[in-house]
Amino acid sequence: MAYSDDKINMVHGAGGEVMQDMISDIVLGNISKTSVNGGIGLEALDDSATIPIDDEHVIVTTIDSHTIQPLFFPGGDIGRISAAGTLNDISVMGVKPVSLSNAMVISEGFERSDLDTIMKSMNKACEEVGAAIITGDTKVIDSDKLDSMIITTAGIGIGRKDEIVPDSGLEVGDKIIISGSVGDHGMAIMSKREGFGYETELKSDVAPIWSVVEAAKDNGTITAMKDPTRGGIANALNEMANKASVGMLLDEERIPVKPEVEAVSDMLGIDPFEVANEGKVVMGVKADTAEDVLQAIQKTKYGKDAQIIGEVVEGSQVIMETVIGGERLIEPPIADPVPRVC
Amino acid sequence: MAYSDDKINMVHGAGGEVMQDMISDIVLGNISKTSVNGGIGLEALDDSATIPIDDEHVIVTTIDSHTIQPLFFPGGDIGRISAAGTLNDISVMGVKPVSLSNAMVISEGFERSDLDTIMKSMNKACEEVGAAIITGDTKVIDSDKLDSMIITTAGIGIGRKDEIVPDSGLEVGDKIIISGSVGDHGMAIMSKREGFGYETELKSDVAPIWSVVEAAKDNGTITAMKDPTRGGIANALNEMANKASVGMLLDEERIPVKPEVEAVSDMLGIDPFEVANEGKVVMGVKADTAEDVLQAIQKTKYGKDAQIIGEVVEGSQVIMETVIGGERLIEPPIADPVPRVC
Repeated sequence: MAYSDDKINMVHGAGGEVMQDMISDIVLGNISKTSVNGGIGLEALDDSATIPIDDEHVIVTTIDSHTIQPLFFPGGDIGRISAAGTLNDISVMGVKPVSLSNAMVISEGFERSDLDTIMKSMNKACEEVGAAIITGDTKVIDSDKLDSMIITTAGIGIGRKDEIVPDSGLEVGDKIIISGSVGDHGMAIMSKREGFGYETELKSDVAPIWSVVEAAKDNGTITAMKDPTRGGIANALNEMANKASVGMLLDEERIPVKPEVEAVSDMLGIDPFEVANEGKVVMGVKADTAEDVLQAIQKTKYGKDAQIIGEVVEGSQVIMETVIGGERLIEPPIADPVPRVC
Repeated sequence: MAYSDDKINMVHGAGGEVMQDMISDIVLGNISKTSVNGGIGLEALDDSATIPIDDEHVIVTTIDSHTIQPLFFPGGDIGRISAAGTLNDISVMGVKPVSLSNAMVISEGFERSDLDTIMKSMNKACEEVGAAIITGDTKVIDSDKLDSMIITTAGIGIGRKDEIVPDSGLEVGDKIIISGSVGDHGMAIMSKREGFGYETELKSDVAPIWSVVEAAKDNGTITAMKDPTRGGIANALNEMANKASVGMLLDEERIPVKPEVEAVSDMLGIDPFEVANEGKVVMGVKADTAEDVLQAIQKTKYGKDAQIIGEVVEGSQVIMETVIGGERLIEPPIADPVPRVC
């Protein structure tokens, strides 16, 4: 075990290995029924769970609490991320999200105009994928008990069983595609907090990425898929590799990182591969369909900078061939360097 | 409008009319798509939403954030209420809950042993109805930003369209049944907070009430149903009456209130009809099936003290014939007298 004390601390919730140990130990250790009808359940730790409803169809569902600070940041706000984050967890299962449930806990004294802006953002993100906000809950608590606002969203998608793409399906030979530049969200939040003044260039990528997934599905064979949020692509790629008992060989030159993300990364000493993305997909694709999938993704609004960044190999490690000709082992971060990033 | 300032205040989140105004204005005012496939959506403000999936079947879903203080209280804890609250919102739509999604935001420094106890409680409540905890999310934030813990749960049930019982279906002549004593949860929380020392007798009623609903369904015709949580039966009965454009005539003598609830109620000057119940159902039932339904409910674990408390009449008011022979108008509370009660 990577922790030993009797109190929960920040690193537990940060998206790294330590948090996953805690989830396994306390949460999973106490739950007796973790799936319905043989669907994908809690133990799979996939982006969403599934509930088979008949021989052919399946419900996909997920939940996420959003504690991001600041509430308003370059490129988005807590409303947009609360919608996109959950819609994306449904989307990367291969199924179109149809609904969002919205539970808000608001600190007393919160500005009504801010709530108004946040609701507009949430609505807009849902509109982009045609999802409806069908139910909700609002609670207000004392301002000395909660600093601003927590938004928890749950999503539902309905699809065919044979459409489902788990995050565990990689096979040796598959190509790895990322739908765009890496690290934008985490670095934008960090830059804003530190007051670096990069706000005009460096924006969060927060966006609902169903259109990217749909384009990929329609043009090739996806074997595994994740949205690389907390822990960044370092976490997502390792999780996919581990679950499938395979390795990856990545090409640094092909991994898109914006210059302004590089700049903030250098200043803070934080690896852009280890911070959250909120509008990206990483997927394994059958090699013979990879070029078609790439081109289809590049035609979508949020997939213009997509790249084939490597391939699945035998082994158990995610290794990157660096620009200068060496090799670097990409490991899952022990803890997310940026707390409250989503 | 019952409020006018530009900041959210406590009364907004308290379960009374003012909160509903706020929800209507800001939340609903900004959402463009509020239902899927013609199902029950956000605007209905029913206990849950529905998503029709084919000609015959429907998904029922809901979400609730739980901010209750204290986390541990006589009769339960935040784990039990987080599960029961959401499972009950599904149940009172007439459909068996099958899954729970669990998102926790935990304050740094939270005791692991407390989290362990809370997860056990949540699991036990799910076991009672056979529901599975299929997906989740855990985040940890600074202890000066959140005082203890917020648990948000979303639930899913799958049923037949013709099983769905909205909260708007009352018809003149229906009998009103309550599944047991009124005000237990709210008064238990209040008593605990004030240190009245009633903990040995006065316990929260928090419980998953699917078995009560199932017994009622199987033995009669339910026309409308709600779980009387925030705002108590005063709120629930008025909401049901308003939505159906009918009145109610209640008989005070028949409404079960425990002596210890009366005692705390007298001390605090708080109406037991206006505080939350967390293990009760109120329903309208066709008169000719009311006795059968009552007897069936009384045979269930959580329905022993069920009573027929009145009937649906023409009009628009909920009127109670008092024990001393007068009449009292039961109005929805402007604000819940007990904050952070669920």
